[in-house]
Amino acid sequence: MTRITVLNPNTSAELTDTIVAAAQRVSGPGVTVTGAHPAVGVPSVESHAEETVAALGVLEQVVEHQARTDAFVVACFGDTGVQAAREVATCPVVGMTEAALQTACLVAHRFTVVTLPARTIAHSDRVVQALGLGHRCTVVAVDVPVADLVGGSTHLLDAFAAAAREQMTTAGAEAVVLGCAGLADLVTPLSRDLGVPVVDGVAAAVGIAAGLVAMGLNTSRANTFGAMPGPDYVVRPR
Amino acid sequence: MTRITVLNPNTSAELTDTIVAAAQRVSGPGVTVTGAHPAVGVPSVESHAEETVAALGVLEQVVEHQARTDAFVVACFGDTGVQAAREVATCPVVGMTEAALQTACLVAHRFTVVTLPARTIAHSDRVVQALGLGHRCTVVAVDVPVADLVGGSTHLLDAFAAAAREQMTTAGAEAVVLGCAGLADLVTPLSRDLGVPVVDGVAAAVGIAAGLVAMGLNTSRANTFGAMPGPDYVVRPR
Amino acid sequence: MTRITVLNPNTSAELTDTIVAAAQRVSGPGVTVTGAHPAVGVPSVESHAEETVAALGVLEQVVEHQARTDAFVVACFGDTGVQAAREVATCPVVGMTEAALQTACLVAHRFTVVTLPARTIAHSDRVVQALGLGHRCTVVAVDVPVADLVGGSTHLLDAFAAAAREQMTTAGAEAVVLGCAGLADLVTPLSRDLGVPVVDGVAAAVGIAAGLVAMGLNTSRANTFGAMPGPDYVVRPR
Amino acid sequence: MTRITVLNPNTSAELTDTIVAAAQRVSGPGVTVTGAHPAVGVPSVESHAEETVAALGVLEQVVEHQARTDAFVVACFGDTGVQAAREVATCPVVGMTEAALQTACLVAHRFTVVTLPARTIAHSDRVVQALGLGHRCTVVAVDVPVADLVGGSTHLLDAFAAAAREQMTTAGAEAVVLGCAGLADLVTPLSRDLGVPVVDGVAAAVGIAAGLVAMGLNTSRANTFGAMPGPDYVVRPR
Amino acid sequence: MTRITVLNPNTSAELTDTIVAAAQRVSGPGVTVTGAHPAVGVPSVESHAEETVAALGVLEQVVEHQARTDAFVVACFGDTGVQAAREVATCPVVGMTEAALQTACLVAHRFTVVTLPARTIAHSDRVVQALGLGHRCTVVAVDVPVADLVGGSTHLLDAFAAAAREQMTTAGAEAVVLGCAGLADLVTPLSRDLGVPVVDGVAAAVGIAAGLVAMGLNTSRANTFGAMPGPDYVVRPR
Amino acid sequence: MTRITVLNPNTSAELTDTIVAAAQRVSGPGVTVTGAHPAVGVPSVESHAEETVAALGVLEQVVEHQARTDAFVVACFGDTGVQAAREVATCPVVGMTEAALQTACLVAHRFTVVTLPARTIAHSDRVVQALGLGHRCTVVAVDVPVADLVGGSTHLLDAFAAAAREQMTTAGAEAVVLGCAGLADLVTPLSRDLGVPVVDGVAAAVGIAAGLVAMGLNTSRANTFGAMPGPDYVVRPR
Repeated sequence: MTRITVLNPNTSAELTDTIVAAAQRVSGPGVTVTGAHPAVGVPSVESHAEETVAALGVLEQVVEHQARTDAFVVACFGDTGVQAAREVATCPVVGMTEAALQTACLVAHRFTVVTLPARTIAHSDRVVQALGLGHRCTVVAVDVPVADLVGGSTHLLDAFAAAAREQMTTAGAEAVVLGCAGLADLVTPLSRDLGVPVVDGVAAAVGIAAGLVAMGLNTSRANTFGAMPGPDYVVRPR
Repeated sequence: MTRITVLNPNTSAELTDTIVAAAQRVSGPGVTVTGAHPAVGVPSVESHAEETVAALGVLEQVVEHQARTDAFVVACFGDTGVQAAREVATCPVVGMTEAALQTACLVAHRFTVVTLPARTIAHSDRVVQALGLGHRCTVVAVDVPVADLVGGSTHLLDAFAAAAREQMTTAGAEAVVLGCAGLADLVTPLSRDLGVPVVDGVAAAVGIAAGLVAMGLNTSRANTFGAMPGPDYVVRPR
Repeated sequence: MTRITVLNPNTSAELTDTIVAAAQRVSGPGVTVTGAHPAVGVPSVESHAEETVAALGVLEQVVEHQARTDAFVVACFGDTGVQAAREVATCPVVGMTEAALQTACLVAHRFTVVTLPARTIAHSDRVVQALGLGHRCTVVAVDVPVADLVGGSTHLLDAFAAAAREQMTTAGAEAVVLGCAGLADLVTPLSRDLGVPVVDGVAAAVGIAAGLVAMGLNTSRANTFGAMPGPDYVVRPR
Repeated sequence: MTRITVLNPNTSAELTDTIVAAAQRVSGPGVTVTGAHPAVGVPSVESHAEETVAALGVLEQVVEHQARTDAFVVACFGDTGVQAAREVATCPVVGMTEAALQTACLVAHRFTVVTLPARTIAHSDRVVQALGLGHRCTVVAVDVPVADLVGGSTHLLDAFAAAAREQMTTAGAEAVVLGCAGLADLVTPLSRDLGVPVVDGVAAAVGIAAGLVAMGLNTSRANTFGAMPGPDYVVRPR
Repeated sequence: MTRITVLNPNTSAELTDTIVAAAQRVSGPGVTVTGAHPAVGVPSVESHAEETVAALGVLEQVVEHQARTDAFVVACFGDTGVQAAREVATCPVVGMTEAALQTACLVAHRFTVVTLPARTIAHSDRVVQALGLGHRCTVVAVDVPVADLVGGSTHLLDAFAAAAREQMTTAGAEAVVLGCAGLADLVTPLSRDLGVPVVDGVAAAVGIAAGLVAMGLNTSRANTFGAMPGPDYVVRPR
Repeated sequence: MTRITVLNPNTSAELTDTIVAAAQRVSGPGVTVTGAHPAVGVPSVESHAEETVAALGVLEQVVEHQARTDAFVVACFGDTGVQAAREVATCPVVGMTEAALQTACLVAHRFTVVTLPARTIAHSDRVVQALGLGHRCTVVAVDVPVADLVGGSTHLLDAFAAAAREQMTTAGAEAVVLGCAGLADLVTPLSRDLGVPVVDGVAAAVGIAAGLVAMGLNTSRANTFGAMPGPDYVVRPR
């Protein structure tokens, strides 16, 4: 049995539960998915400043859970803390953003990332550029408060559909990446509305992480991600 | 149970068996892997000209097997026929090259593809460029006749190790992609020799394809890969 | 006398005649242009799947005609089979797409490719990327059935003019590449309408191929395009 | 009088003093340079994991010092925390890496970054890519323990000179960027040895930051770097 | 005292005065800014042909003034003659375009250059590409005659504001680069109108040039910009 | 009869004669090639500073000869003055560098430019980047004084062969571009020595220019290269 731990870098237990439930629905028979999030940190990651808190939370969770998992998935669009986690974790680590972008490449020539809020477009751009996919995807944002995400309202669906449809028309997008964790409930209705594949990065990352485990592949220790102990520091309230 | 069909674009039944056996060893419990290859075609794909024959063979096999599979993996470095197969297949199609390159990105900052023969470096370059990974990987070739591949001799291992080690030293490679199908037996000894991850693209592709099936994702029909019937033509001896 | 053979990868004799007639009108005094097309294959190349059939047809024609020609031009937007033809042909091979893009670079800072149908934008993107011209050109499609191409109707001219004009306004295009063979009749009226150069790739390729012959240049045999015999296989009805 | 605060993201007061002293020597008459470092954190930043600790330390220092400064310089190669600092600081923030790379562009066509340890090449690559300078510079590492940096020994000079000279020969480097803070003492002897400009990023950043202040330019609040309060969290020992 | 000479490549003394006055207002206390322009040449640089005249004028001025300056700033958008000036000048040379683009990178994730007339977009593209910033900025033009620039009319402000605002909306621009010398008077009102940083390249270049002088950095003589005497030729009326 | 005028931007009549003779040998039956060079200017173009003189010389020659020619070829590696000439000339203009690079793309997957002296590598890089070919070619220099070029000595051949051979081995080069005008005599012996195509840019440009004339294509006047009168200025001795 392959054990995947999905790390939610923010402190919302509700979001962790939503993410894990969705990931379980699409994981294969030999895979168990559990979730974790930091006890201390930010309730939502919507800025570079919040990413610095969240990244340390990811490392804290890696240290805490790695004895009982075979791979980690980091469930925050922008892949906050993924590279640091690769150094600390003794097992593979997959970011939901890199997994989503790679998956979209396999089902579409061009695609779009629909993220939120607009200020985090730069966070997505960072992963797009690290993977070299600027020639195949656009990144746009919907103008929806993050607080509205819970529940997956019709309002939310309409906003994503409108943004995606515009990219289909103007940029030739043939698939859509959901640029936020916890939106798996949008996959089916949005895909039906648009008639194109819609990718949830957490689901994609869980499958890819299970594949790495099955192949016995782990992070290279040759250079960039040479093993590091977890940091001696954690985040605490000011 | 998820059924993955691995398509070997050349006509070597022995190679098909080797590939499938290796893929089965790393596939998850809910996945069955079967193989197929064209009855008519080239015994090995080592040129653009042979790719044109092989690509049509891939399509022929897609038509023949798609009623009994959930996804296809195309097992030829260079991803011959993968884009055409996406149009014809009613299910997802994953190329071993794109799968290998994407997998290497998850375990290393920079990596190298070791392929053969040298004239097919351009075939790898094509996929590297389609995925935008030129800033993260090099492509080199070993000077070993394709006929020597069978058996995975020490000679072969030495050649791959030497080529990879040079890229580790001169280009900062932290992982190695095997640039040919049927070399899965090299993964363990080469990885042990070099101390870095070694990626077999077929194994990687099988896991990724199973993930696409689990998520219910299929090729986008919006534009580039709109559904096409299988061609009315097959390859026949001149 | 330099003999150029224009290979139409589809089976339309009418299209071959149209292409050759247009090419003859712009070829220099020392150049003769003849045409050829496969006896068996697809009537039009509008998908990756059709490209696999067409590519083998190109090779078949190379083998059949190369004793009586000094260079080949492949007359299908997307340059189907050009790289394979370079291996098999004993003389130089020029694709109409690469020729058109290179020519546009010499008369404009930025330009646009207007192709059809929309699903083949990816085919043009492939050549744009191989030549590294993504920073200088856009690729758009007109929504005209390929069947309407014959005759060069006003309807067709209007569609190309509208698409081109939009790229002139929004993307700074200063020249237009016709993204399909057989449209040479559009060059004069479209250029007059738009006031910018309009490039027919077949005409461009014929001139360039004649130049290669004059210089005594042939495909490099050093590596990628090392000489290969024509494949032992041809396409036949299923 | 323009006040620049140089933030050393690690906890070494000795390094802070070294950096500030060097920066003062090259700053203009109207500029005062002071330094700061976190009270709690890592003694050296040599991994992504250590960067997560250091980044939060940068933010803590921004909050503490911004009432008394006109601009911040972040003095860690890799520009750890710079983007987050742009959100939190009410004044401009310049990273030593971006400043060094931009400066090298003004005195050389191609150049090289010599950093250490080798595992942080990826950190430099990140800034090189964000600025789009991959076509003009290489990044290499010297094999010197960070602990050896103090004092600027001959050993250190030799290592940097050897690495730089190799890039001058093999990659056409015409200038050298010192890929680490606190190495300003190497500038003069290394430049004399090599006969090419040697850039210390902290010195470069101080001048550039003073220029931003003089022009009244501050970080754009339009989108990516919209103002954020300092995080409610700090790093504390585990 | 650091002496910066701003070279206006056209023959307009009025423009030189405007540029110098603006640069003086933002230069630090230890910096004196003087201006110069060729006695013979074009009154405005709006084409590649005019650039060839202007570039020789830049070199003439370098030779004439370099005994009495510590660095040159070339004040023409497109950085006409900057590379040649680097060879001839014994001190550093900074172009206003490279300075403006580098500065914008420090205050915004994405930005736009608003230049004029439209035919010089290619001149800006040239510098954008040399610096590798195509992924972070767009270049657009306003349709205002260069003759209207004098005086900084409301008409001009409106045109720049409209063009910039469109790029903020459609391309995510977070800062604006003024794509012409002599527009410093637009910085304050335009920045107030748009609510984002507005960069005048001459001001940026003066600060950066002063920084190079303070650091003792000069153009590398290793290869590309090896020292050259001023040309033995000057421009004269036909 | 198509009249091509080859413009040598330096003042060497001997070089002009050499270039024209070589171009005539490879031009088609309907093409006449004549040469021209400025009466006043630099004897050789080996720096950016010399390029500024040469560029104005190119424009002077365009004005003088355009009434009697159908197209211009600019015969200086680096394409000095080509963009300005496009504005002034009423007929098409082709640079030898762009023609050589485009031609190499048609006969090889990867290739190398061997230029001289080393300081002009940047001049070649400029054209490589404008055409987007950085992923397919390297630029290297031989250490031969320009004065040694006359006569095409064995010494010269050896130097070019050694530089090219190294790029064939280390960078996969499959063809060679001669990075200097006047070296056409090297084409045959160097190609025989190396066993790969060797491209002389002037020959390539003459053929391409004749093709543009045959197609009736001229420089786009839409924007970047809108028609300009020849400058009112010429170069004269200081």
